[in-house]
Amino acid sequence: MRFATYSSDNETYYGAVTDAGMIALSHLFPQWPTLYDVMSANALDTLVSASRDHPVTHTEYVYEMVMPNAPRILCVGVNFPDRNAEYNDGSAQPKYMSLFPRFASGFTGHDRNLVRPPENHTLDYEGEVAIVIGKGGRRISQENAYDHIAALTLCNEGTIRDWVRHAKFNVTQGKNWDCSGAIGPWLVPFTDASQLDDARIITRVNGEVRQDDVLSRMMFPIRREIEYISTFMTLKPGDVIVTGTPTGAGARFDPPRYLKPGDVVEIEVEGIGTLRNGIEDEQV
Amino acid sequence: MRFATYSSDNETYYGAVTDAGMIALSHLFPQWPTLYDVMSANALDTLVSASRDHPVTHTEYVYEMVMPNAPRILCVGVNFPDRNAEYNDGSAQPKYMSLFPRFASGFTGHDRNLVRPPENHTLDYEGEVAIVIGKGGRRISQENAYDHIAALTLCNEGTIRDWVRHAKFNVTQGKNWDCSGAIGPWLVPFTDASQLDDARIITRVNGEVRQDDVLSRMMFPIRREIEYISTFMTLKPGDVIVTGTPTGAGARFDPPRYLKPGDVVEIEVEGIGTLRNGIEDEQV
Repeated sequence: MRFATYSSDNETYYGAVTDAGMIALSHLFPQWPTLYDVMSANALDTLVSASRDHPVTHTEYVYEMVMPNAPRILCVGVNFPDRNAEYNDGSAQPKYMSLFPRFASGFTGHDRNLVRPPENHTLDYEGEVAIVIGKGGRRISQENAYDHIAALTLCNEGTIRDWVRHAKFNVTQGKNWDCSGAIGPWLVPFTDASQLDDARIITRVNGEVRQDDVLSRMMFPIRREIEYISTFMTLKPGDVIVTGTPTGAGARFDPPRYLKPGDVVEIEVEGIGTLRNGIEDEQV
Repeated sequence: MRFATYSSDNETYYGAVTDAGMIALSHLFPQWPTLYDVMSANALDTLVSASRDHPVTHTEYVYEMVMPNAPRILCVGVNFPDRNAEYNDGSAQPKYMSLFPRFASGFTGHDRNLVRPPENHTLDYEGEVAIVIGKGGRRISQENAYDHIAALTLCNEGTIRDWVRHAKFNVTQGKNWDCSGAIGPWLVPFTDASQLDDARIITRVNGEVRQDDVLSRMMFPIRREIEYISTFMTLKPGDVIVTGTPTGAGARFDPPRYLKPGDVVEIEVEGIGTLRNGIEDEQV
C-alpha cells in the first residue's frame, strides 16, 4: 500500500499508487483536503480500506512532495558512524543528536528535478528515511516509540553545502533553498518494526553507489529520536522526522562531488521504494 | 489598530483590540478562519476597515499566541553588538546572520505563563520585534524590503539555555520547548518605516531593565534579513521573522539569572505594545 500526493491536469489530489496507475481518493474525503490532513487526523487506515474498493483513475500524473503543506519537518543530522571509524571505541560519538527543522518549500516530489541556484553550486544529496507521526505524545518512551509512527517515506535531504556554514551555528540557510531536496515518492503504512529495523538505505548518483548503510547502525536509533524530540515538544499526528543520513554525501569526497544538471539521484529502501530526482539549474 | 487571536468561553477568535474591549471579526470572514489565514491572504487592510464599523463584543478574553497556526517562524540569532564592544572596529562581527526556525507550539500568548519544564531550569528570556510578511517574494532587495512587511508584533524568544548546546550545531532542542516563549500581544499594521527604524526595545524582569537597545543598532538590519532570507527561500504572506535580540539575556550574567516561577517578563516597544508573561513550573 502506497499513498501519494500528485497532480493531473493542473489539479492536486492524493490517492493510492498501484502498478496499473493511481486510485484517486481525495474526492472521497472532503473533510481531509490534503494527505497531510489525513495524517494529522491519524486516518491512514481509512485510506487503506478505501483503496481496496475503488478503481484506477489516473495513469498520467506528476508526483508532488508527499505532503506539500506539512508544517513541521524535523531533520536529524548525520546519524551513522564513519565506515572507517567503526572499529574505534566510539568515544567521539556525540551525546545528543543534531536537529534542525526544514520548511516544506525546500522539497519537491519524486521524478522531478532538484533546483541548483545561481548563487551557489554546492548542491549535495543526503539519502534518508522519513517517518510520519500517527499518534501524538509528549515524553514518549523508546519502548513505545514505534506505536507513534503511522507511515514511512524517503527523503533526499538536499543541501547547498557552502551555505550550511554561513553562520557559526545553525545550518538553516543551507537547508532551506526552494526545491533543493525531495520527499516521496509516497507514504507506506508502518505496520511492522522490521520495516525500519532491517532496512538498508542506498543512495546512487548516476547509478554509482554513494551511500550504503543499514538503519540498525544509526548512532541515534529512531526510537531514541522520538524519545528525545518528544521530551521538549509534543509530537502531533502528521509531524515528519527525517531520521538522518549515512556517510557518503558529495562533500565527503576530495575533491567534493556536487550535483550538476543531468545527474540523477536515487535513494532506495526495500519495502519503501526508490526516490529519484534529476537536477536542473534555476532559471532566474 | 491592533489585531489579536483570543479565546472566550472555550472558543478561539480573532478581532480588533480597543481600550474598551475586543471587537470580534472572525465571524465576518468565514473564508479566513484564523488570523494566520488573514495574513496569508495579505488581507490585514480588510480587518482595519471592518474594525471601524463594528462594536466591542468581548470584555473578558484570554490572549492566544498571535497566530497559533503559523507554519513558518524564522528567528535571527543575537543581532546587536555588545554595549561594551561598540567602540571596537567591528572586525569580530560575523559576515552572515544566524537563523533558526521555531515551531508555533513553542509560543504562548500575552498575559500567560511561560512553562519551565522539570528536565531543566535554565529558562531564559530574549526580547525581540517580529515582523509578518504581507507580500511574498524571492530575492527581495533591501530597498524594497519594507514593502513586504504587513505587520509587527513582539516575541519573547524564550529558551532552555542548557539545551541550546546539546548538539555541536543547531539550537533546535533549546528553542522548541512547548510554551517556552510568547508572541503577541497583537499585530500592529506596518505603515511607516519609522515604526522600525526609530524603535527602542526594552526587556524587564520584575521591573528591572535587562535589555535596552534601539533597532538602528542591529548588526543585520531588518532590510538585510529580508534580502538574505529571500535569497534562498521564497517568502510567503504570513511568514514570521523574529528579528533578533539585544544583549542582556539571563545567560549573560555571572552567575546566570534564569527565570523562575513568580517572575514577570515584559518586552516593550513603543508603538507596538508590551508583551507580558509570568513563569510557571510544568505540572507533569
